[in-house]
Amino acid sequence: MRRGELTTLLRRVKSGAVSTSEAARQLTAEPLERLEFATLDHERALRAGFPEVVFGPGKTPAQIVAIVGRLYRRSGVVLATRVDGAGIEAVRRAFPRAQVYDRCGAVVLRRRPPRGRGQVLVVCAGTADLPVAEEALVTARALGSRASMVADVGVAGLHRLLAHGRELRGARVLVVVAGLEGALPSVVSGLVDRPVIAVPTSVGYGTHFGGLAPLLAMLNSCAAGVTVVNVNNGFGAGYAAHLVNAGHR
Amino acid sequence: MRRGELTTLLRRVKSGAVSTSEAARQLTAEPLERLEFATLDHERALRAGFPEVVFGPGKTPAQIVAIVGRLYRRSGVVLATRVDGAGIEAVRRAFPRAQVYDRCGAVVLRRRPPRGRGQVLVVCAGTADLPVAEEALVTARALGSRASMVADVGVAGLHRLLAHGRELRGARVLVVVAGLEGALPSVVSGLVDRPVIAVPTSVGYGTHFGGLAPLLAMLNSCAAGVTVVNVNNGFGAGYAAHLVNAGHR
Amino acid sequence: MRRGELTTLLRRVKSGAVSTSEAARQLTAEPLERLEFATLDHERALRAGFPEVVFGPGKTPAQIVAIVGRLYRRSGVVLATRVDGAGIEAVRRAFPRAQVYDRCGAVVLRRRPPRGRGQVLVVCAGTADLPVAEEALVTARALGSRASMVADVGVAGLHRLLAHGRELRGARVLVVVAGLEGALPSVVSGLVDRPVIAVPTSVGYGTHFGGLAPLLAMLNSCAAGVTVVNVNNGFGAGYAAHLVNAGHR
Amino acid sequence: MRRGELTTLLRRVKSGAVSTSEAARQLTAEPLERLEFATLDHERALRAGFPEVVFGPGKTPAQIVAIVGRLYRRSGVVLATRVDGAGIEAVRRAFPRAQVYDRCGAVVLRRRPPRGRGQVLVVCAGTADLPVAEEALVTARALGSRASMVADVGVAGLHRLLAHGRELRGARVLVVVAGLEGALPSVVSGLVDRPVIAVPTSVGYGTHFGGLAPLLAMLNSCAAGVTVVNVNNGFGAGYAAHLVNAGHR
Amino acid sequence: MRRGELTTLLRRVKSGAVSTSEAARQLTAEPLERLEFATLDHERALRAGFPEVVFGPGKTPAQIVAIVGRLYRRSGVVLATRVDGAGIEAVRRAFPRAQVYDRCGAVVLRRRPPRGRGQVLVVCAGTADLPVAEEALVTARALGSRASMVADVGVAGLHRLLAHGRELRGARVLVVVAGLEGALPSVVSGLVDRPVIAVPTSVGYGTHFGGLAPLLAMLNSCAAGVTVVNVNNGFGAGYAAHLVNAGHR
Amino acid sequence: MRRGELTTLLRRVKSGAVSTSEAARQLTAEPLERLEFATLDHERALRAGFPEVVFGPGKTPAQIVAIVGRLYRRSGVVLATRVDGAGIEAVRRAFPRAQVYDRCGAVVLRRRPPRGRGQVLVVCAGTADLPVAEEALVTARALGSRASMVADVGVAGLHRLLAHGRELRGARVLVVVAGLEGALPSVVSGLVDRPVIAVPTSVGYGTHFGGLAPLLAMLNSCAAGVTVVNVNNGFGAGYAAHLVNAGHR
Amino acid sequence: MRRGELTTLLRRVKSGAVSTSEAARQLTAEPLERLEFATLDHERALRAGFPEVVFGPGKTPAQIVAIVGRLYRRSGVVLATRVDGAGIEAVRRAFPRAQVYDRCGAVVLRRRPPRGRGQVLVVCAGTADLPVAEEALVTARALGSRASMVADVGVAGLHRLLAHGRELRGARVLVVVAGLEGALPSVVSGLVDRPVIAVPTSVGYGTHFGGLAPLLAMLNSCAAGVTVVNVNNGFGAGYAAHLVNAGHR
Amino acid sequence: MRRGELTTLLRRVKSGAVSTSEAARQLTAEPLERLEFATLDHERALRAGFPEVVFGPGKTPAQIVAIVGRLYRRSGVVLATRVDGAGIEAVRRAFPRAQVYDRCGAVVLRRRPPRGRGQVLVVCAGTADLPVAEEALVTARALGSRASMVADVGVAGLHRLLAHGRELRGARVLVVVAGLEGALPSVVSGLVDRPVIAVPTSVGYGTHFGGLAPLLAMLNSCAAGVTVVNVNNGFGAGYAAHLVNAGHR
Repeated sequence: MRRGELTTLLRRVKSGAVSTSEAARQLTAEPLERLEFATLDHERALRAGFPEVVFGPGKTPAQIVAIVGRLYRRSGVVLATRVDGAGIEAVRRAFPRAQVYDRCGAVVLRRRPPRGRGQVLVVCAGTADLPVAEEALVTARALGSRASMVADVGVAGLHRLLAHGRELRGARVLVVVAGLEGALPSVVSGLVDRPVIAVPTSVGYGTHFGGLAPLLAMLNSCAAGVTVVNVNNGFGAGYAAHLVNAGHR
Repeated sequence: MRRGELTTLLRRVKSGAVSTSEAARQLTAEPLERLEFATLDHERALRAGFPEVVFGPGKTPAQIVAIVGRLYRRSGVVLATRVDGAGIEAVRRAFPRAQVYDRCGAVVLRRRPPRGRGQVLVVCAGTADLPVAEEALVTARALGSRASMVADVGVAGLHRLLAHGRELRGARVLVVVAGLEGALPSVVSGLVDRPVIAVPTSVGYGTHFGGLAPLLAMLNSCAAGVTVVNVNNGFGAGYAAHLVNAGHR
Repeated sequence: MRRGELTTLLRRVKSGAVSTSEAARQLTAEPLERLEFATLDHERALRAGFPEVVFGPGKTPAQIVAIVGRLYRRSGVVLATRVDGAGIEAVRRAFPRAQVYDRCGAVVLRRRPPRGRGQVLVVCAGTADLPVAEEALVTARALGSRASMVADVGVAGLHRLLAHGRELRGARVLVVVAGLEGALPSVVSGLVDRPVIAVPTSVGYGTHFGGLAPLLAMLNSCAAGVTVVNVNNGFGAGYAAHLVNAGHR
Repeated sequence: MRRGELTTLLRRVKSGAVSTSEAARQLTAEPLERLEFATLDHERALRAGFPEVVFGPGKTPAQIVAIVGRLYRRSGVVLATRVDGAGIEAVRRAFPRAQVYDRCGAVVLRRRPPRGRGQVLVVCAGTADLPVAEEALVTARALGSRASMVADVGVAGLHRLLAHGRELRGARVLVVVAGLEGALPSVVSGLVDRPVIAVPTSVGYGTHFGGLAPLLAMLNSCAAGVTVVNVNNGFGAGYAAHLVNAGHR
Repeated sequence: MRRGELTTLLRRVKSGAVSTSEAARQLTAEPLERLEFATLDHERALRAGFPEVVFGPGKTPAQIVAIVGRLYRRSGVVLATRVDGAGIEAVRRAFPRAQVYDRCGAVVLRRRPPRGRGQVLVVCAGTADLPVAEEALVTARALGSRASMVADVGVAGLHRLLAHGRELRGARVLVVVAGLEGALPSVVSGLVDRPVIAVPTSVGYGTHFGGLAPLLAMLNSCAAGVTVVNVNNGFGAGYAAHLVNAGHR
Repeated sequence: MRRGELTTLLRRVKSGAVSTSEAARQLTAEPLERLEFATLDHERALRAGFPEVVFGPGKTPAQIVAIVGRLYRRSGVVLATRVDGAGIEAVRRAFPRAQVYDRCGAVVLRRRPPRGRGQVLVVCAGTADLPVAEEALVTARALGSRASMVADVGVAGLHRLLAHGRELRGARVLVVVAGLEGALPSVVSGLVDRPVIAVPTSVGYGTHFGGLAPLLAMLNSCAAGVTVVNVNNGFGAGYAAHLVNAGHR
Repeated sequence: MRRGELTTLLRRVKSGAVSTSEAARQLTAEPLERLEFATLDHERALRAGFPEVVFGPGKTPAQIVAIVGRLYRRSGVVLATRVDGAGIEAVRRAFPRAQVYDRCGAVVLRRRPPRGRGQVLVVCAGTADLPVAEEALVTARALGSRASMVADVGVAGLHRLLAHGRELRGARVLVVVAGLEGALPSVVSGLVDRPVIAVPTSVGYGTHFGGLAPLLAMLNSCAAGVTVVNVNNGFGAGYAAHLVNAGHR
Repeated sequence: MRRGELTTLLRRVKSGAVSTSEAARQLTAEPLERLEFATLDHERALRAGFPEVVFGPGKTPAQIVAIVGRLYRRSGVVLATRVDGAGIEAVRRAFPRAQVYDRCGAVVLRRRPPRGRGQVLVVCAGTADLPVAEEALVTARALGSRASMVADVGVAGLHRLLAHGRELRGARVLVVVAGLEGALPSVVSGLVDRPVIAVPTSVGYGTHFGGLAPLLAMLNSCAAGVTVVNVNNGFGAGYAAHLVNAGHR
């Protein structure tokens, strides 16, 4: 029952047009439909300041352009992920002001620049992991977090990682992206006192099993404070990092 | 908001003690808590004619006796599954009239015999699969279905199975329990035109992987109409079979 | 031995042309071939009211057209599943009256509309799961069940699902289709007292392992009454749902 | 090189007792040993306000008592996890003021009560998952977070969960603990806008594979913002939740 | 319908007491039950010269003694496998003439020594694999094959294996038993022109996964002519080897 | 040392041109190289009556034509397996008399028809399994066995299988080919007293895991006497069946 | 802090321009950045005599030419692996003197021939494994080891392997490459007293699982002294073999 | 044919007592048995300076004492691994001078201290990994290598590892032992230019899968030069490390 209907019903109770028992019956007869979750959803949109995210796979370029346009008109901000080449091209033509990230297929379109609160740091092990890292970075920024990236800092060359100590310690939350053996989150978590969100990537071959090797490594990290998302899920990591970062004032 | 509170509120709306806008606010302010799911739950209990089932593992004999007693007093019927030896002993002492099924650790306690509608047939491949088959049988009966069992009819001795043709064709739904290669549901499903619920068991060794081999066989059955439950889940199969059977008038 | 041969033999026994011992020898000499299963098969066709289903993969468009035509002439109704684009095109040209379901590659051709008994409800988690859900829907309908679908009701937005309470409670059996974490069947089963047939889909990536994640979730459902079919097996779910539904009068 | 040594060396440079080139040689000769990570470690302890956590398995009761005592004298606060029955007994005798959590084998010993900042909410699906949930709760509290728990709110009985809407929305970060199909984190994440840390448990059987089923479900959650820890890793989840919560002022 | 009943029926047809149509009806009315598979079973027993084999697990010592006794009285020969210590003891007391194989838990009891036809050779990689190899040996012998064993001939010490060339080449069929990497069947198959039945054992640790490593090796053997049985299934290998060997005259 | 060299050496010992100690040194100096395995290999070729088999994958059409030609000139008989379309075409042009089996990519070229001893029966579950079954059939025949096939006899339609009782019982060894749940070998093995070689195929989808489901089923068969080869390995099954069959006189 | 900066700082300490306490603060303030790992890296390059290796996948032909050129100018030697056809073509045009290995996609460009110390022997089971074996061979040679290969010596034809006894015993370290069942490393290790580095390849099908079968076999080798690298990782094996070989004087 | 027999035969050839053709026949008649591998074995023992190693599991204390005694008398040195408590006790009583390593169940008994050549360094991540690390250390030493250990240097506390730079760089070969995520070998390999042999341990829980997690991490290491042994295989790693180290002069 929508609010309008509810108010009408209550008025009819007040006026005696509907008895209280009849009103009680109506209000309890359909327990499943009654919930005005729209309210909740609205609250969520208000709090998160962000509408539904567009997931590219399975959508035609025309569909993507249409959805992006509709969301943009309503909210003033849109994030689309994993859009393929043709979709990217179509978005570019339709929205010349859209920011397009070719490596990971992300598109951001917004009226106002985000406030850029807090500090999310994305740390990326190898150059082949960059598309996933970029997706995390773009997602966190699109949602309103300040975010930056440190790349190519694999564990077999520790000095490159250690050279970024100040950035590591300056972040409120870190997203650490790694394929191969997935050791980087453990090492990074040992250097900071912040939540580390680990993202395994499918970069590897043979017994890598498409990302299973680093996923297991990350789930079994010897460093407390590491949590993990699905293989290649840069979006999920960036989203969770934003939620953590957004809690900081 | 419970029904009593709701009626009170509506009466105060009618009397003018509460404004309609205030009432609307109260009715929508806590969207999550408002759902009177208790109603739904109550409906479910009425329809199913059966209270919550007691799952034995992790409970002490004393706890089992207490829970069984409370449910019995309230509903007049109780089913407990996977009760271990000590629990069985305690139930026997506390409720001498309880029906106890040692092989599968099930206990049934009821005031009136069930009506025994329809016909559930449990088909069991080998003698080692009997505990799981019995759990399915006891569950379906406890819930109110008429149910019987055909046992020791493995696919390497087809004639034993074929000798039960009349029973197979007389059932409204069949639960087929098998370990080892799990081939029986396919063969049975080819002989009847009824839903077959397949239950893989952990009976086997080596590459059986605790029931994975028959589970995969059952999921890949060449016979349409076969659905599957978890390894050794006789309870779940008996429960689902009862739901199917109960739909028949 | 076919019935005609059997009658002839018995007549020759009666007339003395064949001795009883010779007749006994003939009737037992070939125990495997004697079974007149054709009778059984015929019975099955009569009861199910449906001939063999055509499985598209591995067949050329010409083969599909030929098989569909032959079955249609004999039975007046045909269901073909997983027909690819070229096959669909060929069927359309050959049988302009065929109902074609592009999303899942199903084709239905029938002389008379089905009676549409009972009520099968297909519940679908995400839009990417629609081809599998549609296959279940088309299959149940083709076999003669009344069936409808509720789509895009994932567990992360419960209000959408809860808004369909009446449809959920009105079904005799539910097919619940979900990819990703496959949580929907548990939630749905908690809201109804009917059999729930869960279909995991391959929609997902990384540790989804082509549908393994939701399959395991569904097999381990905390809700009793859930049974499961193979990944993407909309046909099998629709077939089993029809068998359940057809039992209701 | 410790700080004292460094200062001495620099003084000798200043006084001319050591040449600048000799000092440079000494300062670069042992690149690996030079890092004063002790400083870093000290910083970490200061920031986290918490010493090393004692992991029980493989330690004798005497060893546990000794380690707990030493850490307590130095830091005034100790957390030990997964201590078995004998270890718990020994700790109780040695430190009568220790808080002991039998269900999960945790021990906390502290001079001052923690400040209890922010709000961590642990949500637990079934009663069998309680030991893991309690470990998360105790860990978050021991580290200094305010934390509470909502238990027995499985997805097959949504109304129980929905009845806790206010608590769900009041948390800064949620730890959601579930065995079986592991669906709860997706449902909870759809109701709040906070980070959700999901903990799969080994509660289940058959194809549950010791927690693999809920782990995969959680990694493939349709709800953004969910991150995951290892099976039964209540400690890791509580630790990460505290790090998230501690960032909030 | 048993043969006696059939003859009676035919006689009544001949005498006119039963019409041919009635007889035809009776003979086709119960298609499933009609098969006189007992005949087939009897044939099988005659040909194999061997009754059902007793599988020990799950049977009490008393049950094993009872079953062994009954089969022995009927057939004059019994094989029981995987009988545990208590069962072995009970059999020894009850049947002092029984041959007992402690290592693999096999028991053979027979009136006459077998004829010992052909030649089965069991080849065993390591001493820890001996229980499985012995089970194969005892099974083949019990069924009536002449059989012998070559043990401790792992692939890392080829000379030991090569020293048995004459025995290898003298066998009609070889059972090759190996744990660890399971390489022996490939090497042996390259030295003979006979069927090789490979048996992986669970001897190993870590990534051996209870026999999965040698099983996969054997299934992927580079030598044609190798077939495989389940992990530790010495009985199955001995049985199949006997069937191969028994075909030789 | 080749036989010619050996004879020369011995003659020089006899003539005194080489001392006995020098000859002993030469004969023991290179223990690894001394083995005249060529003899063994020759023996194998004589016994098997068949040269090396050509495995198509990774070879160009020209290479296949060249190898087939060389083997044919030397031995008068060649078998090539898994030759792709282009290779088949090239072989057809080069050897118009070659027998070509398009479905499985096998080629046989021989001067004389084989003697066709014994009887190998290939039993095939579904039409999609035919390429694998044909490979087994062609291999057994090429090696010199008489062989035939029974096709489309899945376990969900037992009557089709049972109609072939005479052929089943007439075989010396059976190759049973099945995808999906792989139940056919168990059923067949229960009907005969001959060795059954089971071949799982990759026909299936979802949890079939490319043939893993039927492989596990076959390894866990409840019927003794079943041995198994790798997924889709029709060649290996046909080869092993020939070795079994060839032992029969 | 780079060495130049350090020297400057020390001079200013000496001159009094900077106090010792200020210098100590600067030298300890940034513990992470201070490490002059460049020194270490330089040492490594000096010792290994080899710069970074170029990994082809994901790089365009132009990028590969550019990187190879830059490394060549700086070091006088470059190794690139897994370069695809187009990349190989581009390298050939740009550096006519480059040695190109088409089979494995490796490219070596060097000013001076390597010294070729020690002896690495690559042993290869089947012709299909040659690309991986060649990668190991080229890598070991490029790094400065003398290396040779023995090919086509599978375990089902031992005589071919045994004919190479002298080469096997003459190596300081052996790389053994095998697909299928991966048995060769065990056999080779039994014939020599040198480290054996085993490389599983993805050559196989069905239950080979892309190299998992030989990997497990190698990890479970009954021969001590065998270590293993990832599936198809010829580069890693050649690299490790060079490190072992380079230690020998 | 043993050398004595060979010489006699050759003498008789020389004397004419045996014809050259008869001698050739004898020398080629038994190709398999002829190989004097004993020679090879003897050579191996001489070169390795070490007899067969005693593997404890499955042997009684008495058997272990007997085998150790026999090997000691013959060779003056024995290594036994994985001896359980009772075996250790028995060895201690029988050989008071034996060195016993309780943590890993190893026993060494030798007449003379080993020469201790080269330098093997065992690096151990956590205290729970010590039994495996000790086995590697004891094995390398028993075989004659100088060896030492660095323990408790996990990757989440890099400073502890970096503090051992000199030892790391001083080793000729390193054995790196780690459970949990198995990241240590990658980090160590990045700090040295020596072969690194990685040993995964079963220390972990949940998705650790008994050591699978670190095994996969080590096989997918981003650092070249890392090779891997089976889970917990300290013996194999120590053995291989000795072979590498022994090659250095």
